[in-house]
Amino acid sequence: MKKVGLILGSDSDLPIAQKAVNVLKEFDVPFEVHVYSAHRTPDEAIKFAKDAVKDDFGVLIAFAGMAAHLGGVIAANTILPVIGVPCKSANLDGLDALLATVQMPSGIPVATVAIDGGTNAALLAIEMLALDTASLKKKLLDHRENNKKIVLEKNKNIESQLK
Amino acid sequence: MKKVGLILGSDSDLPIAQKAVNVLKEFDVPFEVHVYSAHRTPDEAIKFAKDAVKDDFGVLIAFAGMAAHLGGVIAANTILPVIGVPCKSANLDGLDALLATVQMPSGIPVATVAIDGGTNAALLAIEMLALDTASLKKKLLDHRENNKKIVLEKNKNIESQLK
Amino acid sequence: MKKVGLILGSDSDLPIAQKAVNVLKEFDVPFEVHVYSAHRTPDEAIKFAKDAVKDDFGVLIAFAGMAAHLGGVIAANTILPVIGVPCKSANLDGLDALLATVQMPSGIPVATVAIDGGTNAALLAIEMLALDTASLKKKLLDHRENNKKIVLEKNKNIESQLK
Amino acid sequence: MKKVGLILGSDSDLPIAQKAVNVLKEFDVPFEVHVYSAHRTPDEAIKFAKDAVKDDFGVLIAFAGMAAHLGGVIAANTILPVIGVPCKSANLDGLDALLATVQMPSGIPVATVAIDGGTNAALLAIEMLALDTASLKKKLLDHRENNKKIVLEKNKNIESQLK
Amino acid sequence: MKKVGLILGSDSDLPIAQKAVNVLKEFDVPFEVHVYSAHRTPDEAIKFAKDAVKDDFGVLIAFAGMAAHLGGVIAANTILPVIGVPCKSANLDGLDALLATVQMPSGIPVATVAIDGGTNAALLAIEMLALDTASLKKKLLDHRENNKKIVLEKNKNIESQLK
Amino acid sequence: MKKVGLILGSDSDLPIAQKAVNVLKEFDVPFEVHVYSAHRTPDEAIKFAKDAVKDDFGVLIAFAGMAAHLGGVIAANTILPVIGVPCKSANLDGLDALLATVQMPSGIPVATVAIDGGTNAALLAIEMLALDTASLKKKLLDHRENNKKIVLEKNKNIESQLK
Amino acid sequence: MKKVGLILGSDSDLPIAQKAVNVLKEFDVPFEVHVYSAHRTPDEAIKFAKDAVKDDFGVLIAFAGMAAHLGGVIAANTILPVIGVPCKSANLDGLDALLATVQMPSGIPVATVAIDGGTNAALLAIEMLALDTASLKKKLLDHRENNKKIVLEKNKNIESQLK
Amino acid sequence: MKKVGLILGSDSDLPIAQKAVNVLKEFDVPFEVHVYSAHRTPDEAIKFAKDAVKDDFGVLIAFAGMAAHLGGVIAANTILPVIGVPCKSANLDGLDALLATVQMPSGIPVATVAIDGGTNAALLAIEMLALDTASLKKKLLDHRENNKKIVLEKNKNIESQLK
Repeated sequence: MKKVGLILGSDSDLPIAQKAVNVLKEFDVPFEVHVYSAHRTPDEAIKFAKDAVKDDFGVLIAFAGMAAHLGGVIAANTILPVIGVPCKSANLDGLDALLATVQMPSGIPVATVAIDGGTNAALLAIEMLALDTASLKKKLLDHRENNKKIVLEKNKNIESQLK
Repeated sequence: MKKVGLILGSDSDLPIAQKAVNVLKEFDVPFEVHVYSAHRTPDEAIKFAKDAVKDDFGVLIAFAGMAAHLGGVIAANTILPVIGVPCKSANLDGLDALLATVQMPSGIPVATVAIDGGTNAALLAIEMLALDTASLKKKLLDHRENNKKIVLEKNKNIESQLK
Repeated sequence: MKKVGLILGSDSDLPIAQKAVNVLKEFDVPFEVHVYSAHRTPDEAIKFAKDAVKDDFGVLIAFAGMAAHLGGVIAANTILPVIGVPCKSANLDGLDALLATVQMPSGIPVATVAIDGGTNAALLAIEMLALDTASLKKKLLDHRENNKKIVLEKNKNIESQLK
Repeated sequence: MKKVGLILGSDSDLPIAQKAVNVLKEFDVPFEVHVYSAHRTPDEAIKFAKDAVKDDFGVLIAFAGMAAHLGGVIAANTILPVIGVPCKSANLDGLDALLATVQMPSGIPVATVAIDGGTNAALLAIEMLALDTASLKKKLLDHRENNKKIVLEKNKNIESQLK
Repeated sequence: MKKVGLILGSDSDLPIAQKAVNVLKEFDVPFEVHVYSAHRTPDEAIKFAKDAVKDDFGVLIAFAGMAAHLGGVIAANTILPVIGVPCKSANLDGLDALLATVQMPSGIPVATVAIDGGTNAALLAIEMLALDTASLKKKLLDHRENNKKIVLEKNKNIESQLK
Repeated sequence: MKKVGLILGSDSDLPIAQKAVNVLKEFDVPFEVHVYSAHRTPDEAIKFAKDAVKDDFGVLIAFAGMAAHLGGVIAANTILPVIGVPCKSANLDGLDALLATVQMPSGIPVATVAIDGGTNAALLAIEMLALDTASLKKKLLDHRENNKKIVLEKNKNIESQLK
Repeated sequence: MKKVGLILGSDSDLPIAQKAVNVLKEFDVPFEVHVYSAHRTPDEAIKFAKDAVKDDFGVLIAFAGMAAHLGGVIAANTILPVIGVPCKSANLDGLDALLATVQMPSGIPVATVAIDGGTNAALLAIEMLALDTASLKKKLLDHRENNKKIVLEKNKNIESQLK
Repeated sequence: MKKVGLILGSDSDLPIAQKAVNVLKEFDVPFEVHVYSAHRTPDEAIKFAKDAVKDDFGVLIAFAGMAAHLGGVIAANTILPVIGVPCKSANLDGLDALLATVQMPSGIPVATVAIDGGTNAALLAIEMLALDTASLKKKLLDHRENNKKIVLEKNKNIESQLK
């Protein structure tokens, strides 16, 4: 199975990346985590992206806040699907990162998930990898079934939680 | 090769979907287009999503405006990767569709592209399908090379366009 | 009297739903509370909506945050009036939930109240039920009279609270 | 059957109100239309609201733009359900009217629909009136069935509209 | 000298009104404070506004949050200048109150100050009253001179506060 | 009677200022109009503000777009009440001008009206001048009465305008 | 004198760049214009930035719309001051480009001007170059003097333009 | 070497200015810090700007929040490059300060950095001063190299920080 590559623009994005890591571990999907800033280490970020196909990555996930260019910079240098996670920083509640990630001009897409959406970024990566890995399809269905059970369990108990 | 399924929440989204169709044709990727509203034909939209794996789709693209629920409704009913294209409508410049598409809660991701981003939605779908289709990888590289040439051609001529 | 159905997209919406429950209890209006996610348990949410008329509900209230599709999904599957309560989540101060709830396309309305507006959602439901229940009309008038008294009492005491 | 009262804050809101009128006529629901500004004719607006119950109205719909206070002013003076339609004016794309209509403080709800959502305002009013009018329930189901057919017809023809 | 009337939509606006009271006391300007909700006590709010001229008020200041209609309701019922103070509430950072206060349609102005701008609301009221009260002009000049001294004092000490 | 001073940051604001001029002429209130940019002619703008009291102005109105500093610059240099009219420019729909005008820090208020609110700016100025001019009070009441009649006339004719 | 380098992310930004070119010509400042997309020609954009010091550029101006990464990508690869001009595209009125340009994380600044602010970008570049070029200082002062005269001329004629 | 002048609109901006001071000290660039409010001490702020060239400043940095006019007022009175730092205040998350700083009309640019971007403001000032100071160029390159090392060090350790 191909690896998922997680690239953090800053180690302050670690708590959001951790959510993705938790999912990838749960699904036994191999992954690597790197800290490469689009602005402070552009050469390293670009080299990582350019080598990603031959380094056996299947999907890349970029975590970045503020004027979040990392997803775009990575995507400009690989034809692998790139998922962008806009991370909330001190101001503007993540709106800057969201727009800077999702509003990519024609030619270079970044698959954007919700602000701080580390969990969904990993699930989306797995859905992509599952296209030719039957075992992942099965796990995705199980994961959804499990989520459903959790909701239905909460449904059963909700009345008791009301005052 | 698996098909790409395009679902339009309304036929007013046709000009944006046309941009995706143009790309898919250029890449010779098989596709189907449907108009299924999440609100006016929920049963049909959901049935389409539930059958998508067995109907041999690989990626689904949902086009919707305003309170754009279509991407989420489709994604909730399939484990295929779902791409959401927020479409601008008469008011709010597409911000409503963007937030309603991208801010999915944990568990069900929608890979969101730019407002009215039909071209990138198709390219993203192709990047996903290319994960196990070498011929698509080649075409993606060629497409990028071609885009690059167009920019560089414009670069050559820019001085002459200035007054 | 018909019942009010409260559907929570997640049990994190409980504090907002509690505000509605408090009002419904105060008015002695029968109600049921359920946790059904539009995305994690779509079948259950839809079944609930489709059965709502025969299950003797009069009005439904959907509580959801982020890309809040629950109100729309419920409304698409019943002709009962559906009230949507956009719930604030970690980012964007509830603006995402507000737009995803209120900006419904033509055909399927969702009666939207303020962000986190659990109290008003219940009052609105009661105003609807009161259309053919004289006793509720009386209670609504009393409730308003009481609110008025509370404000006027505060008016009397305001000077003493100023430094 | 009770009447629906439409109140326009300004006659510039007429095109949006016309959309509601079209629906009410289609459903044979009796209605009255008035122009009463919350600011330029507050007494008349308030008198209309206070008399609405005895004047045999069942639901009121307020259309207003900018700092759209009309819905709130009407709702403060009646216990009938009040639907607010935020109308887009020259600037801010209707966001001002939306927030001024939907963000009502606890105690006085306004059931808000989408910006310029005249059609849905009427449908919501009819859903409320249908609570105790079986014939309206039937018409609502027919209307939805018809909408569904229109979408499915469009679905059939969509391929032919693509270039 | 005419009085300044302060009207609070809710006693939760008290901390902001307190800032205005502090200024009015400092300037020895007579004032009254009331809690009248535009929605929960519309009659009292309107009566206060209608009587304001004969009750010897010169300027009115309305404090309100969320869909802040109070300024507009007061202004619609008096020809005295009305100052609106948009108060921040739990969500949206005061943007709702700002737009609901400032975006008044033609005919009925509300002089809007910054979100939570209690101090400036009082200063603006005093500037109005000073139009025909020479003693207030003098105090305004002194107040500005004093503010200037405070800034210049801070300017002197700023270097010592830097690390 | 004191004069109203209108200062335009740019002659592109003329159509908005014209609306104010129309009102001032209707009320026979003396006025002067100037074009002084806060940025391109700061000295002239400031001199105008500093001389405004001795030049017999009673109220100043500043019209400006984009980062609309004119209201604040004028207000910082006079104790006369200053009304700010945020003018919409090519981008952002006037939101930049609104925030740059209304969000004044404590000490120097600017009485802000709606985006492009030239009519209300003049009415507000007249309300201020009317504080000690009985004839203006009368005219304001007449103006409101007239506005009311226009609305009520429209109310009479509204049904005939519906299709 | 060092050259100013103008880099356009797309030739659709040409009208905004033209405004900068007009100013640079007026000031006789040498310049070069290039079209290099941060996403479609990342290598060329980066090479241009890396070579800018030795290619005798003094200041760089990046024009880009949507998720405007160009300013950041250029700035990450040179220590020359980089000016970013956020360009309005079809949706969101330039807000996306503004936030994607200005909200740069610590370490790599982009000097951002107004949306579509081509004129000011050139003036800012000239102010920087003027730091050690006395002749440019003189021209800047003349330019301001000229702007001032234009405003004062408009001031003279404003009354005649009012109806 | 020319000095950098830091002007704070209020001493509440001190923590943001401190970040700039830290950088200037690290680079051994001479600087002065002043507190001058555009509104409370306009004369002093303007005098400072007008004297800045002869007082041997090379670049000015203005820190201000809310309706942040300081950058514009300073820039209107000098031809030195002026950097604006929009500072977040109690409401609106700094959006007001950002728009009031960056959206300068043609003629007077303010080089705007991110909200609370004190560090980048200083780096940008140094980049400008470095245009004719080779030693600063060297320090800028070293600073970037150092930043790069910090990121790469974090990259090495990231795996160990994941749970």
